[in-house]
Amino acid sequence: MAGKMVVLGIDPGSIITGFGVVETDGSSSRVIAWDSVRTSSRSPLPERLAAIYQAVISQISTHRPDVVAVENVFQSKNVKSALKLGHARGVVLLAAAQSGAAIHEYAPREVKQSVVGTGSASKAQVASMVRRLLAIGDVELGEDESDALGVALCYAHRMRSGALSER
Amino acid sequence: MAGKMVVLGIDPGSIITGFGVVETDGSSSRVIAWDSVRTSSRSPLPERLAAIYQAVISQISTHRPDVVAVENVFQSKNVKSALKLGHARGVVLLAAAQSGAAIHEYAPREVKQSVVGTGSASKAQVASMVRRLLAIGDVELGEDESDALGVALCYAHRMRSGALSER
Repeated sequence: MAGKMVVLGIDPGSIITGFGVVETDGSSSRVIAWDSVRTSSRSPLPERLAAIYQAVISQISTHRPDVVAVENVFQSKNVKSALKLGHARGVVLLAAAQSGAAIHEYAPREVKQSVVGTGSASKAQVASMVRRLLAIGDVELGEDESDALGVALCYAHRMRSGALSER
Repeated sequence: MAGKMVVLGIDPGSIITGFGVVETDGSSSRVIAWDSVRTSSRSPLPERLAAIYQAVISQISTHRPDVVAVENVFQSKNVKSALKLGHARGVVLLAAAQSGAAIHEYAPREVKQSVVGTGSASKAQVASMVRRLLAIGDVELGEDESDALGVALCYAHRMRSGALSER
């Protein structure tokens, strides 16, 4: 076990991208920060992508994560929304790659399984468990932010269970 | 008319991204360069995106385009391939946005219509017309490179027809 690690969880989206930063030693985790970046659907796509990229770079330079954990997606409502989401994920993964941090990707089902204990959990259940596991009181926590914290916790739980063979 | 302009056409793809650089004054165009970057599907996605991004940055710093013209896509075989293509397009548009060049996006149909005269033209027809219009002799020209030159020519033809109201 490599001592304490800082994990930046990211939930990419073409409108809102959520961030959640967690410090973990595998057996216990504490929340460091959460944030999100919202882009206007009326702005040109390249500008929106630049804003998302810049927000990731800013999170990385502030928190210097050892690991970046990103929500993965294999399904989508339709091809159009898949293309849009792909653009946002592309610049998120690029910024993560440039930082030199280890990158892990988790499907929504894996995050729900890890945080709530069932892969079919609702977003509200994830939010509720994230609050409890990280002892986040009654403060505002956006849906994309709690999803991002959930992705970071998913990494932490796998670290605990020794499922990270590559580390 | 703003005199001669350098147009960097880009055909983004998750495996191969093609580049074509054209100088145009609206009434005539000449080819400056073409190139492509190929990434291995066995490499991790973040590394592949970093390679594509770096290739776009390199094209831009070499040719200093006034305009970046990117092939747009609204359809795809399936959600999975749309996500993949979206990732590549995301980092291409990001690099273009960061360069400060004007960005134009054209659907494949628009490129075919502009270069061949029919929106249902085949890839071979596009390649053949690109060669003829730019007086490219019997030298090697990859499919993604001729597509990228076609996108650049699409911009040039619209410049000629005055269809670029924003300039």
